Amino acid sequence: MSDRPTRTIWHAGDGDVEVIDQTRLPHEFAVARLRSVADAADAISRMVVRGAPLIGATAAYGLALAMRDDPSDGGLAAARDVLARTRPTAVNLQWALDRVTNELAPLRPEDRSEAAYALAASVCDEDEAINSAIGDHGLDLIRRAAGDGPVNVLTHCNAGWLATVGWGTATAPIYKAHDAGIPLHVWVGETRPRNQGAGLTAWELGRAGVPHTVIVDSAAGHVMQRGRVDLVLVGSDRTTATGDVCNKIGTYQKALAARDNGVPFYVALPSPTIDWSLRDGAEVPIEERAADEVAAVRGRTDAGEVVTVHVTPPTSPVANPAFDVTPARLVSGLVTERGVCEASERGLRSLFPQ
Amino acid sequence: MSDRPTRTIWHAGDGDVEVIDQTRLPHEFAVARLRSVADAADAISRMVVRGAPLIGATAAYGLALAMRDDPSDGGLAAARDVLARTRPTAVNLQWALDRVTNELAPLRPEDRSEAAYALAASVCDEDEAINSAIGDHGLDLIRRAAGDGPVNVLTHCNAGWLATVGWGTATAPIYKAHDAGIPLHVWVGETRPRNQGAGLTAWELGRAGVPHTVIVDSAAGHVMQRGRVDLVLVGSDRTTATGDVCNKIGTYQKALAARDNGVPFYVALPSPTIDWSLRDGAEVPIEERAADEVAAVRGRTDAGEVVTVHVTPPTSPVANPAFDVTPARLVSGLVTERGVCEASERGLRSLFPQ
Repeated sequence: MSDRPTRTIWHAGDGDVEVIDQTRLPHEFAVARLRSVADAADAISRMVVRGAPLIGATAAYGLALAMRDDPSDGGLAAARDVLARTRPTAVNLQWALDRVTNELAPLRPEDRSEAAYALAASVCDEDEAINSAIGDHGLDLIRRAAGDGPVNVLTHCNAGWLATVGWGTATAPIYKAHDAGIPLHVWVGETRPRNQGAGLTAWELGRAGVPHTVIVDSAAGHVMQRGRVDLVLVGSDRTTATGDVCNKIGTYQKALAARDNGVPFYVALPSPTIDWSLRDGAEVPIEERAADEVAAVRGRTDAGEVVTVHVTPPTSPVANPAFDVTPARLVSGLVTERGVCEASERGLRSLFPQ
Repeated sequence: MSDRPTRTIWHAGDGDVEVIDQTRLPHEFAVARLRSVADAADAISRMVVRGAPLIGATAAYGLALAMRDDPSDGGLAAARDVLARTRPTAVNLQWALDRVTNELAPLRPEDRSEAAYALAASVCDEDEAINSAIGDHGLDLIRRAAGDGPVNVLTHCNAGWLATVGWGTATAPIYKAHDAGIPLHVWVGETRPRNQGAGLTAWELGRAGVPHTVIVDSAAGHVMQRGRVDLVLVGSDRTTATGDVCNKIGTYQKALAARDNGVPFYVALPSPTIDWSLRDGAEVPIEERAADEVAAVRGRTDAGEVVTVHVTPPTSPVANPAFDVTPARLVSGLVTERGVCEASERGLRSLFPQ
């Protein structure tokens, strides 16, 4: 792991929190400092941090920042509210807020700040441990797919270490396989509108020396038709108790292409992203984000300046649903920290009986 | 049709040929002048003109420009060669070259130039007539889909009048329905990497007053899952004798999503795009275009300047297959100038028995 930082979020030591500013990758590597719960909420909303696990970790630290300023019951409730409103789809935002709030509420206000930082740190430690375990289980899938040449894995969006505290979810098996010397090649879907594949996953894989090729989202079906994909591995923002997977917009189309071409389609997910209360993916609220994310693209000019350019006619309306739902019937299996299971209630309950 | 020009290519009167420069839309409307066969070949390669029918028309005019300069047998053969090498996938490039060459070859060199301009003009006239007929047949499909609210049509890339000499293929039924007062709404997939949907189709529809919404390519499946699409209508760069459809990369994924959601998926195609020699879409050569088309995006800054920005890390490899093949089994029907038929050899032969 020497060629990638272990963490995307950390306690700066003085009570502030630092994160990698993901809006500026791959063009520049910059660290943003969060000094208040408002900073944390803004970082989540603007996708300075993104990815379900990292959103959860940032929310936990957001509560810690709030407790530093105002550890009263009112301060706790207000902080929870502002953080809960940032992103509607990722369920482990709620999970992290519930977990930290439930621990803090019984404490005396003067004890809450220290406890909140410790809780946020343990949310982070656990995320990294969970993803490492996902990597171990997913590594078996990659080993089984290995033949004569490199194993061709296709992924969507960024379910890499940048989307988590460390390791990543879909990338954890990839990094473990690479470290184990298994020849690999990763097809990286660019993931419009925010280009998390082209900008973040390609950057991560390049830094780690993992061979990869960026393609437009529309090309996934074609490379599968041509027999150039052995395995699809994606992440999840929310998985229902019945195994329906809500993930970055476009995941569903990739699952359809995988099914049509007999390519295994696996979803890597930490258990905090499971929503045990939902039995149908159609019930997951789908965040509609700003039209500008589609209408404009951020990139660097030949001169190295990072600018935003508009690609649509100014008068054309735009819709920007950020997630879609892949029905369990299209999912070959779920890769969790406890092992790989069928994408079904029975499968999930076999690993998580409680 | 008063709100849109009838033509994308025309004889400037002095023997030169003019075209709309489609690399500059939607940011600016500019006309490019083609003075030689080299200019015509360059316009096709760089996609100043694009779309199977318009490529054919430009190739025909390219031969006319060549005959103006050198009407010898050698001049004709050389012009044909340079034009044939521009784009490998669209079959009506070959069709137009064969048609014009076969007519010119028996003529005396001194008669070839005038004949070539007349032939190119008739290729253009026929294309417009064919597309108008496609529009009439496709209009019936839209009428049948009409219910209480607007008919929601989803399209991909630009199979609009900009892709043809006039009317467009997939858009011809849309324009005819709009002119007939049928309430319509069109979902426009942006069509990475060159954004022909976001840049060209949205511009066309906006100019014509047709309600539309731009979405990323990945969102097509989601809007279909939510019941918001009544009909998919796309074009074709080459259709095999058995009904397999080679079209802009991403068409296949949209067909899969349509099938999974019970949405009719129709392909509008002029008969010169049928390749009667092929029985399997897998045999269509798929053009691999420059990596820069994926790695960089062209758009306009807030200041109105049109610039190109890079979106991928400089060291990440990129693949850019420009087309994919939608198997006939996923196609509800083919809309041709002679009517709508099943996507099969039997269906095509019922309309084109010769």
